[in-house]
Amino acid sequence: MKKILLQLDSDGQPSVFDAVAALDGGAEVLLRHGGVTVEAVSGLVHGVIFTRGPEDLHGSAIFIGGSDVARGEALLEATRKAFFGPLQVSVLFDANGCNTTAAAAVAKMAASLGGLEGKRVTVLGGTGPVGLRGAALLALDGAQVRLTSRRADRATEAVARLKARFGVDVEAAVVSDDDERDRALGGTQAVLAAGAAGVTLLRQSLWQSLPELRVLADVNAVPPLGIEGVKSHWDGRDVEGKILFGALAIGGLKMKIHKAAVARLFESNDAVLDAEELFALAKERLGL
Amino acid sequence: MKKILLQLDSDGQPSVFDAVAALDGGAEVLLRHGGVTVEAVSGLVHGVIFTRGPEDLHGSAIFIGGSDVARGEALLEATRKAFFGPLQVSVLFDANGCNTTAAAAVAKMAASLGGLEGKRVTVLGGTGPVGLRGAALLALDGAQVRLTSRRADRATEAVARLKARFGVDVEAAVVSDDDERDRALGGTQAVLAAGAAGVTLLRQSLWQSLPELRVLADVNAVPPLGIEGVKSHWDGRDVEGKILFGALAIGGLKMKIHKAAVARLFESNDAVLDAEELFALAKERLGL
Amino acid sequence: MKKILLQLDSDGQPSVFDAVAALDGGAEVLLRHGGVTVEAVSGLVHGVIFTRGPEDLHGSAIFIGGSDVARGEALLEATRKAFFGPLQVSVLFDANGCNTTAAAAVAKMAASLGGLEGKRVTVLGGTGPVGLRGAALLALDGAQVRLTSRRADRATEAVARLKARFGVDVEAAVVSDDDERDRALGGTQAVLAAGAAGVTLLRQSLWQSLPELRVLADVNAVPPLGIEGVKSHWDGRDVEGKILFGALAIGGLKMKIHKAAVARLFESNDAVLDAEELFALAKERLGL
Repeated sequence: MKKILLQLDSDGQPSVFDAVAALDGGAEVLLRHGGVTVEAVSGLVHGVIFTRGPEDLHGSAIFIGGSDVARGEALLEATRKAFFGPLQVSVLFDANGCNTTAAAAVAKMAASLGGLEGKRVTVLGGTGPVGLRGAALLALDGAQVRLTSRRADRATEAVARLKARFGVDVEAAVVSDDDERDRALGGTQAVLAAGAAGVTLLRQSLWQSLPELRVLADVNAVPPLGIEGVKSHWDGRDVEGKILFGALAIGGLKMKIHKAAVARLFESNDAVLDAEELFALAKERLGL
Repeated sequence: MKKILLQLDSDGQPSVFDAVAALDGGAEVLLRHGGVTVEAVSGLVHGVIFTRGPEDLHGSAIFIGGSDVARGEALLEATRKAFFGPLQVSVLFDANGCNTTAAAAVAKMAASLGGLEGKRVTVLGGTGPVGLRGAALLALDGAQVRLTSRRADRATEAVARLKARFGVDVEAAVVSDDDERDRALGGTQAVLAAGAAGVTLLRQSLWQSLPELRVLADVNAVPPLGIEGVKSHWDGRDVEGKILFGALAIGGLKMKIHKAAVARLFESNDAVLDAEELFALAKERLGL
Repeated sequence: MKKILLQLDSDGQPSVFDAVAALDGGAEVLLRHGGVTVEAVSGLVHGVIFTRGPEDLHGSAIFIGGSDVARGEALLEATRKAFFGPLQVSVLFDANGCNTTAAAAVAKMAASLGGLEGKRVTVLGGTGPVGLRGAALLALDGAQVRLTSRRADRATEAVARLKARFGVDVEAAVVSDDDERDRALGGTQAVLAAGAAGVTLLRQSLWQSLPELRVLADVNAVPPLGIEGVKSHWDGRDVEGKILFGALAIGGLKMKIHKAAVARLFESNDAVLDAEELFALAKERLGL
């Protein structure tokens, strides 16, 4: 009875990254599907839940990915609807790596800050996949989260989505120039830079001048990085009293979480591993 | 030398059901292809028959599936044409599960009836994938088969296809209302309900009133079931002297046949497992 | 840590031939992608190079194939561009089997001729995938190569491509009728027939009349063969003092080279196995 993972991906070519991580996480056979639409989900999922007896269903599982998080969320919803009572399998949701990356970054920040309860944290570029999930995880653990965006409509939508999906209240700040962004950082104790690859969101002169800022994390690995002056491989480097995490260091923990999550899929047939569950895994890894 | 199964599927997303059944049946590696056209077959098949020496070809095999049985039959024909004398591999044909499902249902009916020779059997909804194959298997074992359809053209076409493909003579009855259907069941000793999912084809008051009727089988697992009053999990339940089989019970045998057929593929390089061969496997399983 | 091979294929259905050869060559899991465009390459390649640590990257590799050699070459170039310094994996390039087939045919010719240095060799149908690679390998080992084509523009382009890619000087002969082809063979010591399947390029009466001709190889396995009178399975058959190789005999060595090349992929993370490297493998096999 091999461990079979059904990979549902909304992109035309299913992710190779997710496939390798799945194999290294313990999946023995991958059934990979690209270009998956919501309409196709039930047939594919039924193929998994109707082929093995209930006592063997923990040997089958589903991974949902793809670069488009909203489409991935729709596939996840369709997957859950396709289950028949006890005839279900465990599911890991990590479209665009949003969950594992956010979980890794926020767990490292939490460890450095000595917990998130009551901390003031700013998420720069907070309306993208990792920014949204990062803001949610920070808020779920009690931080006061402010997210920034250049566009008011996207900021408003982000706040609404976070409320609807995670039940958290997050503040949005529209920042159309450097001065506004500087002001948005006033009083912040930690920064998560989650913007587009190759865009600098925070100048070194600024972060060095913020007296209360203690922890900075950047998930962008493509130069120029999101936080000026950080190095990708820095894994908690102390620079004049501030702790910095680069994208490669966060990525290392992300891979461990990803593989551990795949392994966990095959321990039962009813786990749904989404942002919260992956964050718990990340904290476990760091002894939090 | 791994056991490699080439999965040719006419649907855009190749069947996950068939993939899991193949893996559990003993295939070690699947090469899965969706959206397969007749034109693409020879190139794909040549990739299987020209890569291993004749003495190793039993380690490679082909499964042909997809929801459209006619397109699957065309792929099967193209596959056989692509073989080069002794350079061939074994093939399992089970588009839409038609062969394995029909084999399982008919084998269970045969066991309950004490053989099919001379028995009068009606196939309700007999022009669909399972109905056609079921009618063929019943007739091949000597039953007098009548199949019903709401449309005269489909009934005529079904009879012709059964004669052409299996060499059997089957009677068609066009039933446009309940009364006609009731009359079509006069004198029948067994019923196979093979209609569309969620459509009731036989009312309980009727089947209970037919004195000669002894065995009923229903392959529809989606409520309302094809035979009113049957339960999906009934596996030969006696109800007032009549023996009833539901879709889940038939499906259990179907899965065993499917997996046994996959295992058989790798015993030689020249087996073609179509309706007749899968029916033989089903009867073996039941000790017939 | 399984040996993972990413198969990038420009055809809609990725090659089954290449998949089976890869599995028999030692790849443990295949990640197969058809219809791959140049634009899609970096995402797929990053999925391979960013998922395992540098010390484990020899466990991942890439195969580039597909029936269109020019498109395959573009995928190879895009793959190399997607690498990040030490973050790379080994690559095998064999679009349309051009490299392995040419390497096998030319190695057999070299063995029969006692080396290629200074030999006069004619490649018939030399502008196709195998013809071009065969001409290149012959020239790289010192042969004086003439290739024939029916069209002047294709012959000119072939010569230019061979100069650009391999740095070799090859002579082209445009042959629009049998007489011209006969003349192009004057003084030749060996012939490689690499034309389209099912087209005779060399009549038996001619090759038997050429006094200096010693070795003939034909890569066409579909009758009528490229060299009249040869048999596909001849593996160095002596016919009146001339040594003949048929397509099946060349194909046998080709498969061995293909599998050995796959095995070699997993010995390091920086090999690029293209025409020259596969030719070296072929000569190794023959003790040259």
